[in-house]
Parts: sequence; C-alpha cells; structure tokens
Amino acid sequence: MDRRNKLIKRKVRISVIQMLVNKEKKDNLENAKRLIIQSLKFNPDIVVLPEMFNCPYDVKYFPSFSEKEGEITWNFLSNISKEHKINIIGGSIPEIHNDKIYNTCYIFNRSGNQIGKYRKTHLFDVDIKNGQYFKESDVLTAGNSLEIISIDEIKVGILICYDIRFPEITRKLMREGAKIIFVPAAFNMTTGPLHWEILFRTRALDNQIFFIAASQARNPLSSYKAYGNSLICDPWGRILKKLDEKERILSKEIDLSEIPRVRNQIPVLKHFREDLYK
Amino acid sequence: MDRRNKLIKRKVRISVIQMLVNKEKKDNLENAKRLIIQSLKFNPDIVVLPEMFNCPYDVKYFPSFSEKEGEITWNFLSNISKEHKINIIGGSIPEIHNDKIYNTCYIFNRSGNQIGKYRKTHLFDVDIKNGQYFKESDVLTAGNSLEIISIDEIKVGILICYDIRFPEITRKLMREGAKIIFVPAAFNMTTGPLHWEILFRTRALDNQIFFIAASQARNPLSSYKAYGNSLICDPWGRILKKLDEKERILSKEIDLSEIPRVRNQIPVLKHFREDLYK
Repeated sequence: MDRRNKLIKRKVRISVIQMLVNKEKKDNLENAKRLIIQSLKFNPDIVVLPEMFNCPYDVKYFPSFSEKEGEITWNFLSNISKEHKINIIGGSIPEIHNDKIYNTCYIFNRSGNQIGKYRKTHLFDVDIKNGQYFKESDVLTAGNSLEIISIDEIKVGILICYDIRFPEITRKLMREGAKIIFVPAAFNMTTGPLHWEILFRTRALDNQIFFIAASQARNPLSSYKAYGNSLICDPWGRILKKLDEKERILSKEIDLSEIPRVRNQIPVLKHFREDLYK
Repeated sequence: MDRRNKLIKRKVRISVIQMLVNKEKKDNLENAKRLIIQSLKFNPDIVVLPEMFNCPYDVKYFPSFSEKEGEITWNFLSNISKEHKINIIGGSIPEIHNDKIYNTCYIFNRSGNQIGKYRKTHLFDVDIKNGQYFKESDVLTAGNSLEIISIDEIKVGILICYDIRFPEITRKLMREGAKIIFVPAAFNMTTGPLHWEILFRTRALDNQIFFIAASQARNPLSSYKAYGNSLICDPWGRILKKLDEKERILSKEIDLSEIPRVRNQIPVLKHFREDLYK
C-alpha cells in the first residue's frame, strides 16, 4: 500500500462551531473559546468556525472590527489551536491590510502556526426583491488567489460563503487535489431555504469530494438573519449531518475512502471531455 | 424596447411527454403520437420526448432499433411536428451512421424541418455497488459537438441524461446564449433519488436559465427502471412542476423574463472572476 492510498484511507474527525455572534468582539471570542473547548469531547482533528465569527455580519461593523494579521483574533486562534493541539479553520474575520479590508480566513495547525490564509474572492453584492439586500463591496476588497493547504497531510480547500456560487473554483481546488472543502458562511433567510443545500450537495457530487459548511447561528437580534443549517456533505452529494438554526456543534467523522469509491462507481472525472468545454 | 428585450420577455408553453417505452418500436411511436396529440390541448410551443423514446433503454436493443437519419422515427417526428405546427425536441433514438451507433436527439420546427441534432457526448458507463450497472460504450459512440439552436427565435441547448453531470457543458451553452436547456433523460432508481433534482436545480441556478428534464415513465417490466420525475426548473433553481414516475404529460408555461430578473438580483454572472479560474 503506497503512501497515497494510506492517506486516502484516512478518517478525519471534524467539529463545526455554529455560533451566535453579537456586537462585542470580546464576547464573540469568549463564546468561540467555550464552544471549541466543548467540541474537544469529540476529539476533532479539525475545528471550523463560521464566517465573520468575531463580528456581526453587517458592513457597518467591518471597519471597526477589522484587525491586522497577528493581532487579537489571530492570536486567539493561534493560542487555542496550540493549547489543544487541534487544527483550526478560523471561519473569517475582517482583516485590514494597507487600508483595505478583506473577509479573511486564517488556518492554524496543531502547533498554533498559521498554515494558510484565504481572502474571500467573490464579494456578496445582492439585491433580492422582497428579500435580502447586502453589499460587501461597499467596505470590503476581494482577494485575488485561491487557497489549498495540507492539514495533517490531507489537501483541503477554503471558500467563503458566496464563493460557493461559482462552480469553477471548486473545480479548480479539486483538480489541485482538495479532498475536503471548508466553507465558512452566512447564508440568509432568502437564499438559505432556496439554495444552501443544493449548492453544497451538487458541488460535492460534481467533484466527488467532501464539503463542510459552517454557518453562524441565527441571532434574532441581528440585522442579518443567518440561515444556520451547518452541514457535512459527502462525495455522493448526500448530507451526512446537518444542524438547525440554533447555536450548536456539529461533530462527525468522515471517511476519505468514500472519494475513490464514488469515483470508481460513477467515473465522471474520467469521462471528462476537455475537447468540448473550450 | 429593442428586439433582444422583446425576445427575453417571451412566454413559452412547454409539454413534456413522460412516456412508457416497450420492446415494439411501432407501439412506442403510436404511444408517442397519442400523447403528443393529447398534449395539444395545452397548445404547447415546444413538445419534448424522453431519451430513447422509441427503444428500451438497454444496450442489447440499441443496434436492432437503430435507424439512419431520414428513416422511420425521423419521418414520424417530422410529420407530426408539421401536421400540428409544433416544435418537437425528439428525445433521443439510436441513430446509425457509418456503422456507428449514437444516442441522438433530432429537433424539428413547426414546418417539420430538422433544425438541430445532438449526439450524446458523455456516455453513461457506471457500476454502482448494490445499485445500477450500465455501459453505453459497449454499443454506442459519443458525439463530438454541442448543440444550440433557435426555436421560435429563442436560443435553446440540448443535453442528454448523463451529460447533466458535467457542469462545463451547461456553462458553455449558457455563454452561447441558451435560455432553456432541454434534457431528454432516463435516470434510474439508484441515481434518481440521490441526484436527479439537485443536478437540474443547481445547473439552472448557477447559470440562471431554465431546465426541462424529460424522463421515460417507469416501466415495471423493463430491465432498466427509469426514475421518471420529469420536471421544469426555473433560473432561481426552483422546481416549477414535477411528475411522479407514471406515464403522464407535464405542461407548463414558462416566463423567460425571470432570467434577467434573477440575473439582476443575484448577479453571479457579473461577479465572474475569469482571472481566478484558469
């Protein structure tokens, strides 16, 4: 059995922290800490936080909550991953760099070292009749590169929320070897019921990889009502486990050997016709 | 109002013939005729037949049922479209050409003229553990080009069944202007419950176009148990109407002005980042 097969057989324990976020950064970090510690009972390899886990999802808060790399929230994530020897996909936070603000995910390994960083590349600017209005680009700048990293020697990709609507990025991350894609997110009460599940399920199915979607819990006091429904989807496009809208932890062991299994049985990736797609 | 806007506002009446198919080609054509005539009560602009509507979906029948262009089934479709002044998306039939057999869809306009032809480009070769086995490539040859045509001045694309699993083709047809994609199909009892709806819904949503899926009805006497569930999906990824597994006609008027509406409200196509996808 070669090394690659050995890795592909690996089982991975994942905890998704579906947390409430309020207007006090300090509260949010304490809440994240409490829930991360609670998740340790499951002995997770990877803990995932939601989009904007330290800041209300509302453009008016992004500037004052923004931090440079290496500041409060960054240190919080580094310390907690080191202390508990867990990998952390740090949801996202407003990052400020050269006077620009990004929606940024930092990733830390079991030693507390930053091993990756992804700035949301597709900003959420929508205006749905009788539904959700939001314009990230009023305040945020989009990142310009995709992110694929190794966590415990498993290649994983990162997307943030609205990015999931662009099938080309998942395709690219899969081609570069991603076996799991983590998606810190905050869909809302318009797009959530309509689109949340089918987007993750179909991306997982098309690319025959796992998807982990980590949402904020729904806060009735927030201007933005997060959909919740954090979920884990397997490479058959099946939802393995899903939450409701409340503050909860979703913990699940996934088996990466499902990937070669589905790829052998429905070999879409072999049946690819690049000649047709140009 | 320019011509383009005028066309985009067009309402289109569609009838999907979800028909039973048996081992007698003559019966199948008579059945198709009966159902097409029945659908005329709705006054459809476009009538769609399912994949292999004149032949059981089983590779052992494809050679003996195969026809050259201009033979029995082709004439049947041409005559019926001319007689009733309807556009027909002719599902698919086994076509033989230079000793090769294709899974081919012919399209006829209201004058009975062939205005398009599509040979399935991705052959269905799957082997699912405790589920469906099928190998089209034992007998069939894949087509080498996509098809986009104008029906009553509306651009439409054609895919056949397994093709839907390849998001790149829908993307390409949409880029070339397709507003509706018709998919004669025959999913089965393994892949149907798992994947049928989410594939059509997500392709429609990603590309903000309509999808029309036309399945065979489920024949308990066939070796291949078709899933049925023919459906019409709008550019928001919502199913507008859906059948069960029985022989029935699905008729529905769709409103193409939903396309610019969703594209303005969730402008994913404007937010495209070609720079990232290379």
